Amino acid sequence: MKVNGKPTRTIWPERLPEGGRAGSVGIIDQTKLPHRFETVSLASLEDAAHAIAEMLVRGAPLIGATAAYGVALALNEDAGDARLAAAYDQLFATRPTAVNLRWALDEMLAVLKPLPEAEREAAAWRRAAEICDEDVEICRQIGVNGLALIEEIAATKAPGAPVNILTHCNAGWLATVDWGTATSPIYHAHEAGIPVHVFVDETRPRNQGAALTAWELNNHGVPHHVVVDNAGGHLMQHGMVDMVIVGTDRTTAEGDVCNKIGTYLKALAAHDNNVPFYVALPSPTIDFTLASGFDIPIEERRGEEVSLVHGKTPTGEITTVQVTPDGSPVANYAFDVTPARLVTGLITEKGIAAANRAAIAALFPERVRAA
Amino acid sequence: MKVNGKPTRTIWPERLPEGGRAGSVGIIDQTKLPHRFETVSLASLEDAAHAIAEMLVRGAPLIGATAAYGVALALNEDAGDARLAAAYDQLFATRPTAVNLRWALDEMLAVLKPLPEAEREAAAWRRAAEICDEDVEICRQIGVNGLALIEEIAATKAPGAPVNILTHCNAGWLATVDWGTATSPIYHAHEAGIPVHVFVDETRPRNQGAALTAWELNNHGVPHHVVVDNAGGHLMQHGMVDMVIVGTDRTTAEGDVCNKIGTYLKALAAHDNNVPFYVALPSPTIDFTLASGFDIPIEERRGEEVSLVHGKTPTGEITTVQVTPDGSPVANYAFDVTPARLVTGLITEKGIAAANRAAIAALFPERVRAA
Repeated sequence: MKVNGKPTRTIWPERLPEGGRAGSVGIIDQTKLPHRFETVSLASLEDAAHAIAEMLVRGAPLIGATAAYGVALALNEDAGDARLAAAYDQLFATRPTAVNLRWALDEMLAVLKPLPEAEREAAAWRRAAEICDEDVEICRQIGVNGLALIEEIAATKAPGAPVNILTHCNAGWLATVDWGTATSPIYHAHEAGIPVHVFVDETRPRNQGAALTAWELNNHGVPHHVVVDNAGGHLMQHGMVDMVIVGTDRTTAEGDVCNKIGTYLKALAAHDNNVPFYVALPSPTIDFTLASGFDIPIEERRGEEVSLVHGKTPTGEITTVQVTPDGSPVANYAFDVTPARLVTGLITEKGIAAANRAAIAALFPERVRAA
Repeated sequence: MKVNGKPTRTIWPERLPEGGRAGSVGIIDQTKLPHRFETVSLASLEDAAHAIAEMLVRGAPLIGATAAYGVALALNEDAGDARLAAAYDQLFATRPTAVNLRWALDEMLAVLKPLPEAEREAAAWRRAAEICDEDVEICRQIGVNGLALIEEIAATKAPGAPVNILTHCNAGWLATVDWGTATSPIYHAHEAGIPVHVFVDETRPRNQGAALTAWELNNHGVPHHVVVDNAGGHLMQHGMVDMVIVGTDRTTAEGDVCNKIGTYLKALAAHDNNVPFYVALPSPTIDFTLASGFDIPIEERRGEEVSLVHGKTPTGEITTVQVTPDGSPVANYAFDVTPARLVTGLITEKGIAAANRAAIAALFPERVRAA
């Protein structure tokens, strides 16, 4: 999407390897957002591993794409089996619980291993670029499918009245290669000239909504307001939200949705106020081996994410401030599970499915057979 | 309650007026909490007005008590009718929408106006002290009544297992003169030796939970964890909350509850998980002229409360950091309304009432007749 008016992806090849010289890949340093837009060149395996581990890049699809390019960068001086295996291990160790990371590394290995060493580096750059393009295409299709839902709502409103959409966390283009998941229908509607307005949950504790989603929308020119996570219920009670669209980390075969902590509370409010609640997702994040979302272990993270808030001081310095008293302990659960009964539908690249086993299976019969 | 081991109120007479010399009143400068515990002497009408306007004191009962003492301080050099009227006007203008402020000023005026000028100053100090003691007694009774509910839950748990209580915002002793409203049952249970543990919602945007409720509980030695406002639903889904107790700014004759933004979301989660949801309140905050909470206008406050977060830097400085991007607008609704159907009961100084017109009227027949 656009940054300073210019179409931008979260990762791009800057320079292909040539005459023995290594290539390089550009990324946005997302740790500096929303206060500074800085890009960084990754010129080695180490650079790529560092970018993932230190969260300069984040979001499952973008982590996968960065790891794919990391393998490509690793093969510049030595494309032997040992080097390939070492690159896999080093990249995998950066965020071992990231499902897309493993998938992308396995994919690279499957393509490169059978090739003669001399062909591997070029093939790696080609496959990494394809992985990026495939992600963009999945997100684009999610957007096209979600656009139809926004069009339906727009048709019920007064001419020119915006469709009000609430979103939680950052399931935006910054988490993918382009378009995003939850934001893709929004960007598609905006591009199609349908007036949309987004309520952006700030999404404590890590403020990905306030910091990243708001930054995205602001740069692309999509009207929005940031609200505290407490506000969504009030907005829905007062008819100020036409639909909710969120992302997900993992969805079960029965349609339970695991997503950023607080999603469940918004789903309850949507249900209580007859506001449609949609979850946008690439279908690979559906776990067909799992029925209940309550079988997903919920990560407890360090308390500093709650007690220390990151931001810009009045003098422009980036720092953290402590908001809790010294001595008060913090509990920090990262995700919650929204039961399928509260989910209006799943917006996937293949189409929209109701959040129940039969509807999901009907859209993905081959996945059900494989599970 | 205790601060550094010492029983403390939020306001206290430091020195009574004597031989023509003005008295003074002590308060806690709550703008410095939770990072610094500082007390301030109020020695004049101007000091009292400043303390209210700049929110060194906050919370309806404490604002009322401070205003009462403000009148007493005003009468030191001149106790004439004009001075009394001017003090009323100056104090009322500090927070004109605070219901208790008007009530306390009217109360002072009613007591002082009929008296000869020479008796007014001493009478004002007496009446201000009584207003404080009356508030403490109301809060104590709320605690005694709420304690019975906690005892019931404790009886169903394994011996020694804590009763887990979730609260939102600060309806604690810092908002009153002592005990607090929502916290009073908690402090009473703690004093009675019943193990309690409190989940404290940080309560964005102004973080009164993280800053004030956590500080209170920490100083009094009540076990607690601070959580983000997003966490309550997850905690309740997993059986980690036995009851919710919150305060309220205004409750209707039918039991709708207007309280800090986000309260409604917690009530929805409590209802969805069969967790009892109680509201603790002094009965004067029930508005018998109002049926539906949705007739209460909801204050929209300035966006900086959301975009700027107040806290302590790593070097110990108190500052604000901006968490939103430059150029992203903010919407900031201060309160929401929890419909009576989601409220298990109202804990008042007179007893506990179910949240419906008949039950509330049965507990306060004289208020119904007066309305």
